[in-house]
Amino acid sequence: MKIKEFQKELAKRKIDAAMFFNFDGDITDPNMQYFSQYTGFGGLVITQKKALLIAPRAEYERARETSKVKVKLAKGKMSDEMKKLVKKRHPRIGIDKNRISLNFYKSLKTATKASFFDISIPCMRLRATKTKEEIEAIRKSCRIADEIMHSTLWNFKRFKTEAEIAAFMIYETNKLGLETAFKPLVASGSNACQPHHQVTDMPLKKGFCVIDFGVKYNGYCSDISRTLYIGEPSVQDIELYHHVLDVQTKLIQQCTHGRSFVEIHAKAHELLGKEAKYFNHLIGHGIGVEIHESPNPKKTPRRPVTRLLENSVITIEPGVYRPNGMGIRIEDDVLVTKNGPEVLTKTGKNLLIIRR
Amino acid sequence: MKIKEFQKELAKRKIDAAMFFNFDGDITDPNMQYFSQYTGFGGLVITQKKALLIAPRAEYERARETSKVKVKLAKGKMSDEMKKLVKKRHPRIGIDKNRISLNFYKSLKTATKASFFDISIPCMRLRATKTKEEIEAIRKSCRIADEIMHSTLWNFKRFKTEAEIAAFMIYETNKLGLETAFKPLVASGSNACQPHHQVTDMPLKKGFCVIDFGVKYNGYCSDISRTLYIGEPSVQDIELYHHVLDVQTKLIQQCTHGRSFVEIHAKAHELLGKEAKYFNHLIGHGIGVEIHESPNPKKTPRRPVTRLLENSVITIEPGVYRPNGMGIRIEDDVLVTKNGPEVLTKTGKNLLIIRR
Repeated sequence: MKIKEFQKELAKRKIDAAMFFNFDGDITDPNMQYFSQYTGFGGLVITQKKALLIAPRAEYERARETSKVKVKLAKGKMSDEMKKLVKKRHPRIGIDKNRISLNFYKSLKTATKASFFDISIPCMRLRATKTKEEIEAIRKSCRIADEIMHSTLWNFKRFKTEAEIAAFMIYETNKLGLETAFKPLVASGSNACQPHHQVTDMPLKKGFCVIDFGVKYNGYCSDISRTLYIGEPSVQDIELYHHVLDVQTKLIQQCTHGRSFVEIHAKAHELLGKEAKYFNHLIGHGIGVEIHESPNPKKTPRRPVTRLLENSVITIEPGVYRPNGMGIRIEDDVLVTKNGPEVLTKTGKNLLIIRR
Repeated sequence: MKIKEFQKELAKRKIDAAMFFNFDGDITDPNMQYFSQYTGFGGLVITQKKALLIAPRAEYERARETSKVKVKLAKGKMSDEMKKLVKKRHPRIGIDKNRISLNFYKSLKTATKASFFDISIPCMRLRATKTKEEIEAIRKSCRIADEIMHSTLWNFKRFKTEAEIAAFMIYETNKLGLETAFKPLVASGSNACQPHHQVTDMPLKKGFCVIDFGVKYNGYCSDISRTLYIGEPSVQDIELYHHVLDVQTKLIQQCTHGRSFVEIHAKAHELLGKEAKYFNHLIGHGIGVEIHESPNPKKTPRRPVTRLLENSVITIEPGVYRPNGMGIRIEDDVLVTKNGPEVLTKTGKNLLIIRR
């Protein structure tokens, strides 16, 4: 996607070529998938005019079938391939310094006599707004996640453990020839107070149960969380759920072109009121080829892209987690359009109560 | 595992502390899991006498439940934590330079005034032979993979597509509360000529069908491949299958203490004879917390550990892949003992023929 825009960026920065790697499984660079659609082992070189994917023999056929850029069989080293493409003696090479290991960088530097420039931030900026094609893939990804979430809730009474729920969701995804975007999180009862709880094969506990799930469609992620209640909720439980839902709804309305994601994160704390101290993660994240990408609700030197723009796609996921107690999280995927936010996640948000 | 041996190694190299990271998902360091058993986000500091895992708030509970080393809640930066543990002004710090990004390394260097040393190779060497506990985990992992492979073959007639087979294997794994070690590979007919073919939802093709699968048990991987035949094989097909099986059996016998994995790879080519030109990947790999680890059948500067030693666990997986034609691969996990090789994979290897 956006290879031409990226090539303009290279020209502007006087960079002869950018290189992205996915070797050995040591480090994977999602920019390679972003620009080529190919997800296997290999390397991608993008010059100001050309793009070439270099794939090892064992993955060459697959690369040819899936890559949007020209594919070459890897014979020598990446550094030699790069030299062939960039016939300068001292080229200026762009790399994503967050996605290259120190050892590999050193070997490349020794082999090429090149100067290296970090292009992680221009890549993040390009990826932080989506093309029409990307939006269609995410829209489809959300629809499939909705279907599977819906059928999970519909079949809920047959599940005895968190592991069974997660297994069901993965199976429904795999049957379609797809993969989940991440390992589904299912947290019942007091487990739900850990936002990153790992599923167990213990019987489901009474109380709130958080399910966080997403699929990948054509390489693009969706991400949805719903919270249901197992047993008989108290009035306070129902009120707390609706408080979180109310906050989530209001926050979604804030997702407009030009808005700062950092401000939306702050706004979540304001709206959660006295519950804010039990909200212990960020309000959301960009989604795309990665499940977490820009824009970001927290500005750091490594991730400085925080502005919501037209065609950004983000999650909005406020939560309340009482220590050793319970947890609630409600998460939708939101597309920023010039007419305001469009919620891509369609699964209903009324509190589902499972009396068993 | 082997923290004490590792601490001796640090003392020998006059390294004050080693640091391993799993931040942001940018780069994951399996050494963190190896030493602590914890698989989430965080950082691990091992000094010559102590070990401390630092986990973010959202994963703190999970870290406390799973980590074998002491856990601390992350408040400041890793570099500050490291400074507290190592009270020297210019400490000598060990890092795995294959598993640290260039940007993170730079930020650490700026913040700490430390000297950094690559400890990737000592870590590889420690991990290349397994402790009793690790062997038990791998043994169990192999047994579960065997059970699921067996039940997949037993149910084979009900599957219509590669995706259905992969989905079934993942589901059977997840139902046990476990995860697969990698995305299962299922390649039927001409797809099988790509060793790294991605499953499709097209009807299964006639001819050889390769299934490559593994699970993780207690963090440890298994890895098994079997090839069956859909339809009516010719005499040549059956002979070729038995040729590969014969080569695999002979190679396993070579897996003894002190033997070079590189020589076993060369031996595979010798034994495959005129089929060797259709064998386009390495003969195997070490398995452990990673699906690919040392010992390695190809010596490179980054992966120099090639010697099989007592308690090494490796795969032996010769294959034959005819371009645009067919593929056969047979893979077992093998433990090197002082009494010779022990095959941990138990699924039968007669050619299963599915007439449908």
